[in-house]
Amino acid sequence: MGKEEFVKEITNIEEDFAKWYTDVVRKAELADYTDTKGCIAIRPYGYAIWENIQKYADKKFKENGVKNVYFPVLIPEDLLQKEKDHVEGFAPEVAWVTEAGGEKLEERYCIRPTSETMFSTLYSKWLKSWRDLPMIYNQWCNVLRWEKETRPFLRSREFLWQEGHTIHETSEEAKKFTMDMLDVYADVIENLLAIPVLKGQKTKKEQFAGADATYTVETLMHDGRALQGGTSHYFAQNFTKPFDVKFQNREGKEEYAYQTSWGISTRLIGAVIMAHGDNRGLKLPPKVAPIQVVIVPVAMQKAGVKEKATELYEALKKNFRMELDLRDNYTPGFKFNDWEMRGVPIRIEIGPRDIENGVAVLVRRDTLEKETVELSNLENRISELLEQIQKDMYEVCLKIRKEKTTVAYSLDEILKNLNENQGYVKTMWCGETECENKVKEVTGAHSRCIPFEQEHLADTCAICGKKATKMIVWGRQY
Amino acid sequence: MGKEEFVKEITNIEEDFAKWYTDVVRKAELADYTDTKGCIAIRPYGYAIWENIQKYADKKFKENGVKNVYFPVLIPEDLLQKEKDHVEGFAPEVAWVTEAGGEKLEERYCIRPTSETMFSTLYSKWLKSWRDLPMIYNQWCNVLRWEKETRPFLRSREFLWQEGHTIHETSEEAKKFTMDMLDVYADVIENLLAIPVLKGQKTKKEQFAGADATYTVETLMHDGRALQGGTSHYFAQNFTKPFDVKFQNREGKEEYAYQTSWGISTRLIGAVIMAHGDNRGLKLPPKVAPIQVVIVPVAMQKAGVKEKATELYEALKKNFRMELDLRDNYTPGFKFNDWEMRGVPIRIEIGPRDIENGVAVLVRRDTLEKETVELSNLENRISELLEQIQKDMYEVCLKIRKEKTTVAYSLDEILKNLNENQGYVKTMWCGETECENKVKEVTGAHSRCIPFEQEHLADTCAICGKKATKMIVWGRQY
Repeated sequence: MGKEEFVKEITNIEEDFAKWYTDVVRKAELADYTDTKGCIAIRPYGYAIWENIQKYADKKFKENGVKNVYFPVLIPEDLLQKEKDHVEGFAPEVAWVTEAGGEKLEERYCIRPTSETMFSTLYSKWLKSWRDLPMIYNQWCNVLRWEKETRPFLRSREFLWQEGHTIHETSEEAKKFTMDMLDVYADVIENLLAIPVLKGQKTKKEQFAGADATYTVETLMHDGRALQGGTSHYFAQNFTKPFDVKFQNREGKEEYAYQTSWGISTRLIGAVIMAHGDNRGLKLPPKVAPIQVVIVPVAMQKAGVKEKATELYEALKKNFRMELDLRDNYTPGFKFNDWEMRGVPIRIEIGPRDIENGVAVLVRRDTLEKETVELSNLENRISELLEQIQKDMYEVCLKIRKEKTTVAYSLDEILKNLNENQGYVKTMWCGETECENKVKEVTGAHSRCIPFEQEHLADTCAICGKKATKMIVWGRQY
Repeated sequence: MGKEEFVKEITNIEEDFAKWYTDVVRKAELADYTDTKGCIAIRPYGYAIWENIQKYADKKFKENGVKNVYFPVLIPEDLLQKEKDHVEGFAPEVAWVTEAGGEKLEERYCIRPTSETMFSTLYSKWLKSWRDLPMIYNQWCNVLRWEKETRPFLRSREFLWQEGHTIHETSEEAKKFTMDMLDVYADVIENLLAIPVLKGQKTKKEQFAGADATYTVETLMHDGRALQGGTSHYFAQNFTKPFDVKFQNREGKEEYAYQTSWGISTRLIGAVIMAHGDNRGLKLPPKVAPIQVVIVPVAMQKAGVKEKATELYEALKKNFRMELDLRDNYTPGFKFNDWEMRGVPIRIEIGPRDIENGVAVLVRRDTLEKETVELSNLENRISELLEQIQKDMYEVCLKIRKEKTTVAYSLDEILKNLNENQGYVKTMWCGETECENKVKEVTGAHSRCIPFEQEHLADTCAICGKKATKMIVWGRQY
């Protein structure tokens, strides 16, 4: 199968981005559909990306004093009911266990859609004194939300995530921790996944059910649609009061603790695919790529080729995540396309002539640039190149984001910009939910956030014309 | 609070082992009960033990070519029904999701009690040719079994585990892989958890629902009761036939694949507690201990003590998992007891006199032996001591196992030995389930396994007197 045929298997990215996306997910064997409606099977190549995200984030969490725990997946119905906004937000999309062990249960259990209620209940049991604070716990687990429309990784009924839940002595400390975790998320997304983030606060309308404030790191996909990368919530005492999470403070008085929660999920795998991919398929940043370098021997049947390729593989795998493609039922051409489709950052081609000359050919997945490298310099050059690719992929995304970020001064202009360009549209805003609803109704866009880095674009709200209080960013979303 | 009072908080291990166990689980803050009946919250100290087990086992798995995946937690009812023995074994203890997203579901989903059915369904979708084999997948996840009697870690309705599921081209390869994974489990339990294992095959009566053969690594607890440490199953084509997992073999003919599955779980945390603990509480083998060394300064208010302790902590934490106890509301005596109860392998005591003399006192948790060590030699000595403790803890367990392993030649004798000694009772056996039922009925013991290392104790079955075919081991179990 030649390149043309091969590429044809993936829908053109400019023609139908949504279909391109699911084609890539399935062809690159990241995930597949299952008999459980709306739930995917994450296959080894997709899961390896998640493991790299976990490893990176978990290390950062632990540097911030986070301790991992595991709490029950089943939440008794009465716990879910305790915080009014929270139950309103989540009850419509939970799954209920009503029978077990051959009997109908007296009380239903929901499968956790998130675990604020479970953590708060346990914190209330354990917390006695200010000396016990802070409690900075996190769990890596599965959650379930019965979404109507699903899409692999982006919106799956079951997904994997980490949910951090912390309680603190003072509101200042809790607020600071909320921000520290947002910084970790920005670090993961920018430095590991090579996607620039927009940091800011969610509006009241968009914030987490039960939160006092929700902060977000927003990302922009190849097609200009936005994707929420991670969120960090400050709860004040919204949960600690109904759940009775209190402690003796330094003055010997009872006080309710201040709480946060924060999460990133397997959605980030979707972000990597959609931020970087192209018509050849996946394009993985080296730091998160399960395979960083693949060796494809050319004229494999010739004497010494397999052996030399294997020798290189053995030497290089000490420092890089390597793959050696010795499949004898595919041509080198097919293999080149196959590994490009799987997004492996560097391909090494080596044939009899190369071996004679003591060289190999390196091909970058991101730019498709080829270079011939002396074998004695191979390891050095791969190191350099992986760093360069990581950096360049970030820069390309940043450039696209700049091109797709516009300013608007009226609702018409927001709509026009989105229709032409998608992307982020910056406007001034009065702060009223009514204007957000209006934008949603007319353009289909949600507010992404009120960026921490504010600009003064005008004096009045682009939607209602009243006095503006903040700059806000709009975008159509995944 | 002095040592006497402190120790009183934990039930005496010889008086009531079951109560001692739950006391230790809760006092050492490994886990706690929750509002979800039969499900525990694994707290940071308990979860850190699990993380160490995961890290060790996952590395070994990957060295054996295992790839991690994640498949749905919800299994449609009709999938569970496909393999007759399997559904009979598991259906009575599953939990059912019958409502979700505000509606009653047309088809119920069970929460996975194990995932043979899900893996088989997906393998049948992906497998085409012998070239796709083997598929060697594993997932680290939660499972649910609606047990009637529960006990933290040992038998919890929800628990964490890894479940490996593999398919192979030939039965020989599958059988070999089943054994390779059993070897990994033996490695984890013996070398990481310092508990000797008894390796063997389960009888038909005790094997996994749907398996062709189940192999096990059995462990013995402090009180002489047995605990199944991990199991590895060979399925032949029992699942691949009903689930249609077939491939074109090298001759171009269709053939059903040969399958295995294997798992270890958070039960192993229970095993560590019950195999090693004593009247002071937990006793953790250094390799799996979340904290390997704790520094407790003495006369902390004296000039330079805190500083010296902190300096040691900073230096040592590069090589060991360290804790520095600077709590100002507890006496050193309380702290000594507290860390002993938490099973930290080595305690460093350092006070003004020690600092003057350039020494510190090391105390081993396993033997309570004290020694004074020059500060310049501290790091070396800790390294040696941790290795020694790991080795000695294994040897102590091995000695107990030897003492608690007896031979019997009649049913009466099996009962007598168990009542006197608990432990393993070796007998000859005819191979009939009827005799197993008899032993269960009379003594309450199950067969542990038919050990790989066979001995010829007699010519006839200890129960029925007919011709013996194998040596078998009996034991009362957790």
